[in-house]
Amino acid sequence: MSSVNNHNNSHRGYQNTHDTTHKQKRYTVQRTRTDIIPVKQQAPKSISNANKLKDSHKTPVRIIPLGGLNEIGKNMTVFECSNDMFILDCGLAFPDAEMPGVDIVIPDFTYVERNQEKLRGIVITHGHEDHIGGLAYLLKKVNAPVYASSMTIGLIKHKLEEHGILNRVALNVVEPRKHVKMGCMSVEFIKVTHSIPGAMAMAIHTPAGVIVHTGDFKIDHSPIDGEKIDLGRFGELGNRGVLALMADSTNAERAGYTQSERKVGESFERLFTRAGNRRIIIATFSSNIHRVQQIINMAEKTKRKVAVLGRSMINVMATAMELGYLNVPKNILIDIETVDMYPPERLVLVTTGSQGEPMSALTRMAMHDHNKINITPLDFIILSANPIPGNEKHVTKVVNELLKSGAEVIYESMYEVHVSGHACQEELKLILALTKPKFFIPVHGEYKHLIKHKKLAIEMGIPKENILLSSIGNVIETDGTKLQIVAQAPSGRTLVDGLGVGDVGSIVLRDRKHLAEDGLIIVVVGLRRGTNEIVAGPEIISRGFVYVRESEEMLQQAKRILYHKLKSCAPYELREWTSLKVKLRDALFDFIFDKIKRTPMILPIIMEI
Amino acid sequence: MSSVNNHNNSHRGYQNTHDTTHKQKRYTVQRTRTDIIPVKQQAPKSISNANKLKDSHKTPVRIIPLGGLNEIGKNMTVFECSNDMFILDCGLAFPDAEMPGVDIVIPDFTYVERNQEKLRGIVITHGHEDHIGGLAYLLKKVNAPVYASSMTIGLIKHKLEEHGILNRVALNVVEPRKHVKMGCMSVEFIKVTHSIPGAMAMAIHTPAGVIVHTGDFKIDHSPIDGEKIDLGRFGELGNRGVLALMADSTNAERAGYTQSERKVGESFERLFTRAGNRRIIIATFSSNIHRVQQIINMAEKTKRKVAVLGRSMINVMATAMELGYLNVPKNILIDIETVDMYPPERLVLVTTGSQGEPMSALTRMAMHDHNKINITPLDFIILSANPIPGNEKHVTKVVNELLKSGAEVIYESMYEVHVSGHACQEELKLILALTKPKFFIPVHGEYKHLIKHKKLAIEMGIPKENILLSSIGNVIETDGTKLQIVAQAPSGRTLVDGLGVGDVGSIVLRDRKHLAEDGLIIVVVGLRRGTNEIVAGPEIISRGFVYVRESEEMLQQAKRILYHKLKSCAPYELREWTSLKVKLRDALFDFIFDKIKRTPMILPIIMEI
Repeated sequence: MSSVNNHNNSHRGYQNTHDTTHKQKRYTVQRTRTDIIPVKQQAPKSISNANKLKDSHKTPVRIIPLGGLNEIGKNMTVFECSNDMFILDCGLAFPDAEMPGVDIVIPDFTYVERNQEKLRGIVITHGHEDHIGGLAYLLKKVNAPVYASSMTIGLIKHKLEEHGILNRVALNVVEPRKHVKMGCMSVEFIKVTHSIPGAMAMAIHTPAGVIVHTGDFKIDHSPIDGEKIDLGRFGELGNRGVLALMADSTNAERAGYTQSERKVGESFERLFTRAGNRRIIIATFSSNIHRVQQIINMAEKTKRKVAVLGRSMINVMATAMELGYLNVPKNILIDIETVDMYPPERLVLVTTGSQGEPMSALTRMAMHDHNKINITPLDFIILSANPIPGNEKHVTKVVNELLKSGAEVIYESMYEVHVSGHACQEELKLILALTKPKFFIPVHGEYKHLIKHKKLAIEMGIPKENILLSSIGNVIETDGTKLQIVAQAPSGRTLVDGLGVGDVGSIVLRDRKHLAEDGLIIVVVGLRRGTNEIVAGPEIISRGFVYVRESEEMLQQAKRILYHKLKSCAPYELREWTSLKVKLRDALFDFIFDKIKRTPMILPIIMEI
Repeated sequence: MSSVNNHNNSHRGYQNTHDTTHKQKRYTVQRTRTDIIPVKQQAPKSISNANKLKDSHKTPVRIIPLGGLNEIGKNMTVFECSNDMFILDCGLAFPDAEMPGVDIVIPDFTYVERNQEKLRGIVITHGHEDHIGGLAYLLKKVNAPVYASSMTIGLIKHKLEEHGILNRVALNVVEPRKHVKMGCMSVEFIKVTHSIPGAMAMAIHTPAGVIVHTGDFKIDHSPIDGEKIDLGRFGELGNRGVLALMADSTNAERAGYTQSERKVGESFERLFTRAGNRRIIIATFSSNIHRVQQIINMAEKTKRKVAVLGRSMINVMATAMELGYLNVPKNILIDIETVDMYPPERLVLVTTGSQGEPMSALTRMAMHDHNKINITPLDFIILSANPIPGNEKHVTKVVNELLKSGAEVIYESMYEVHVSGHACQEELKLILALTKPKFFIPVHGEYKHLIKHKKLAIEMGIPKENILLSSIGNVIETDGTKLQIVAQAPSGRTLVDGLGVGDVGSIVLRDRKHLAEDGLIIVVVGLRRGTNEIVAGPEIISRGFVYVRESEEMLQQAKRILYHKLKSCAPYELREWTSLKVKLRDALFDFIFDKIKRTPMILPIIMEI
C-alpha cells in the first residue's frame, strides 16, 4: 500500500478546538497512519451548548448527500469546507425489478470527479455493502486515502483486490476516539454497536461547528464482543455543542428498543437443545460476525464441529479471525469435505443464503443442487435473518423446498433468531437527547423513515424549522447559525452491469423491459440498390413473443400483410427507409395487437444489396 | 341466461341420505334454479361418527386438486364418483417475477376437457379472483352450470360478460344449507365468514361419505352483516361422521384467532376523529364489502359524503348494493366529478390501489397522475390492507409519494386498519374439533402452510397416516375406509398473455428473461444464392444491450470480427447456414463477453438474395 496523498502522516497529538476548557487534552494516536493535524485555529470561543452556536461569520461547511436519502442503500455523503472535501461512506444499492440485468447500483460520482483536487480522504463508518460497495468504482476515478476501523479496512481490502486496485490505494486503520485531519476539518471516530464489528459514528469538527453522523447503529448494552457504544462521547459532544446531527432512520417506524444481539444467543441455546440428534444448519448474514461467534460458542458447548459454506461467509470469517474480531477455539472448524465423517448430532453448518439468493449455498441445498450437502429429515435448519423487503418470495421458496425434504425449519419471527442492527425509536431519541443538536438531518432511509424520524425529533423539542428533510444532490450549507439548501450538485444512480459502468441507462432499461413483457419480432427485407426491387424477404423472426409452432398461421398471415404493404409502396416510398420502416412497423403492430392484444418490440431491418 | 344442462330444474325437497334418523327432514328451496335431486339411495346405514366409517365396498370417490396446493391462488378441485364429476372453484393466480409479460395464471384444464362428458356442474365457494378468475377460460372449453351464492354469482356475471359468454352459461344462486345434485354426489352450501360476503364452505355428500371443504374462511362471531358462520352445521356433520376435511391453510402459521372485521370499524372511528378537518381517503380491496360498509357507516355518522374511485371498486359496490349486501343511505354517495364542491372535512374517498398496483387510482394520485384528485396536506389517507407478499415494494413506493405531498398516511399494522380473512390456528383447530374428520387434507397454501396445518391436526389427535399432504394433479381416492393417491392427472399452469391462452410457455419465458437480463444483438448478412458471395452486411443492430452512442467503437470492432469470420469461411462452410450461424454467434459471444462480461441474446440472420 502506498499513500497517494501528500498530507503529513506523522503521529501527532490533537487539540480540540471547540472547547477552550478542554484545549490541553491530548489524544495519543495508535495503530494508525492517518493525518492527525490540529483543526485550523479559530478565535477560541466558549461554547457550552447548542444554543450558543448562534454567532455567524464562521467559514461555512457544505454537506452534499449523494446517496442514502429517500432510498435504502448506496450511502454516500460529501463534506466540504473552504478548499477541502472528504467523503463519508461509498456504498452500493441492489437493483429492483425496474432494472433487469443490472448487477449493482452506485452513486453518481460526477460531483466528486469535478472537485477531486479538493478531496482529502474517504472515511467509512462500517463494512456493509451499502457503505463500502461503491468504493472500488470511486477509487478507479479519483485517488484518496481511505480511513476506517480495522475490520472495515479488512473487508475493503478484499473488494479492492477483486478490482485489482489494492496496491494503489492508501488504507488507514483508525481507532475509536481518534481523529483524521481533512484539511480544515477533522473527523473523529466514535464507537457504535451494529450488526457488524468495527462500526463507527463520526463527529466532524468543522470551523462552523461539530456535525455528528451516526452511520448505522443500534444501542446494544450487552454486545457480544463487549465493545459498547461510546454513549459518553456522544454526551460530551452534546454538552459542548453539536451543530448538526445526521442519524440513521432505518428503524424510525419501530417503537421501543432493538433487542440485544445476545437475545439471539439465548434463542440458539433453546434451539440447539430442540435440534437433539439432528444436524444443525444456520443461515445468516456473513458480515454478522457476532452472530457467527455465538454459533461457534454454542457449537463448542454442545460438542459440535462447525463447517462453513458460501464464499462470502468463508472470506468474512477469515478476515474477522485474522483481525481478532472472531474467536474460534482450536479444532472446532472442519472442512466441508469432511462433514460426512461426523454424525449429524456432532455438526453445525454455517451458511450464506438467508435471503434466498438464487446462487447461495442454502438455496442450492434446498433445490438439491449442492454437491456436498443433502437435506434430510435429520436436518434442523435455522434462518437467522429477516427477509429484506423484496426478498420475501425468494426466502419463502427456499423454506418450502427445505421443508419438503423433511427437515425442520425455524424461520418465523416468534423464535427470535434475528435482531435488527438498527436503532428503534427509543434509541433514536436517546442519541438526540445526548447530542442536543441545533440542526437535525435524518439520513439512511426512504421518505417514510425520514419523516418519522423528523416527527421524533420534533417530539424531542427540536424546532421544526431546524430539521431538514433533504434529498440527494442537495448542497446543504451551514455557517453555524443557519442551515439551508443553497445549490444542487449532480446526483443520481449509476448502473453496473458486468464490466459496464453507466452504459445501461434509461433507454436500455426501457428496451429490456419492453422485450421482457412482450418479446420481439424482427422483419428483414432485402432491396436492390437503385431499383428498390424486393430481392429477399420479408422474413419474420420472433423471440419471447409466442410459441412459434402453435402460431405459424398467424406469422404467415403477418408475412403476407408485410409483403402486400411493400408491394403497394410507390418507388419513392421504397427509397425513404425511415418512413418505410415506420409503415412496416405500424402495419405489423396493428395486425398483432388486433389478433392477440400484445405489443412486441418490432424491428424492421432493410438490407440494401 | 339459458341453461345448457339437461338436468331437472324444478324445485324439489331434498332428502338427506346419509343419516336414516334425519331421513324425513326436508329443506325448502328458495331463490334457486339449481338441480335439487335426492342423492342416489344407498343401503341406509346408521353412521353416527367417523369411527364407524370403516365398512368398505362403497363406491369410491376421487378428489383431484388442480390448483391451490403448494401455491397461493388458482384454487380448483375436481370431485368424481362413478360417472359423475363436478368442479369446486376455478381461480387464477398472479404471475411472479419469473413470468414477465404474463397477465394471469390459470390451472391446466386438460383433465376436465378429457372428461367433460362426466361434468355435472361447477360450485364456487366465493367471489375472490383466486376462486373465480379462471372460470371464464374454463367455460370457453367446457359447458356446465355454475352454482354459488348470489354475491358470487353477481361477480361471476361481470367476468363472463367481459369474456362475451354470459348468455350461454347457466348461473344458479344457491342458498346456505341447500344442496346441489351432481349425479351420485350432492353438494351442500354452508355459510362461512370471510373477507367477502356470500362465502360458503361445501359439504360433499358422496356414496363413500361426507367430504367437507371449507373454502376460504375465518370465524368472525360479530360479522358486519350479522351473517355468522354456520358452526352448528359443521358440528352436526361432524357428529354424523365426516369422511374427510379439506381446510384453508393460508394462516396456519399464525397463532391465536383472527380479529373480527368489526375491529377495523373501531379503528376507523378513532382515525376519523384524528383526521379532523382533513379529507379522508381510504384504499382497500374492492371485494371487502363489509369494510366498505363500515366506511359508509362512519361517513354517515360524521356527515361526510362518499366518492368512489377505481373501476373494480365501482363495479363490486354496484353489484353488492343491487343484491342487498351493501346498504348505502340516500344521498351519501356523490359523483367523483363533484368532489370539488365539498370542503375536505365533508369528504371520504374510497379507492382501489391498496397493493400499490401501478395503474390503480391510489398510485396515480400518489404520482400526481390522477386527473380528478390532487393530494395535499389536507388529506388523511388510510391504507386498509396488508401488502400481499411480492407487493411490499410497490406499496412502500406509494406511501413515500403520498407522504411527500404532505398528507398523513396510516399504513402501519399498529393502527389495526386491516384484519385477515383467513382462520388462524385456534380457528383451524375449532373446525377440526367440530367436524372430527377421519381423513384430513390441508389445502390452499404453500408447502410451509400445509405442513403447519398438518401439525395442528396431529395435535388434535388425527393419526398422522390419515393426513394427506397432496400436490396438484394427484388423484386421491377414498372408499370410506382408506384414502390414498392412486394416479396422476395432467395438471400445471396455463399462462394468459393478452388474448393468448397457453401460447406462452417455458421457451418463450426463457427468451423473455434472457432479453430482459442482457438485451439483444442481431447480425444480418446477405449472401448471393449459388455463389455465397457476401452482398450485404454484416450489419449489427442491438436493443437493451448498451447505450449505442457510447459503445460505437465496441460495435464497430464486433462488425470487423464478424466480417473476418465470414471471409475466412470456405465456400462449403457458407452453404451450411446452421453451422455458419453458430460460428457467427460464438465469435460475437466470445468478443462481447471478454469485453464487457455480458451475454446478450445473439440472433444471426442470413438472407439469401
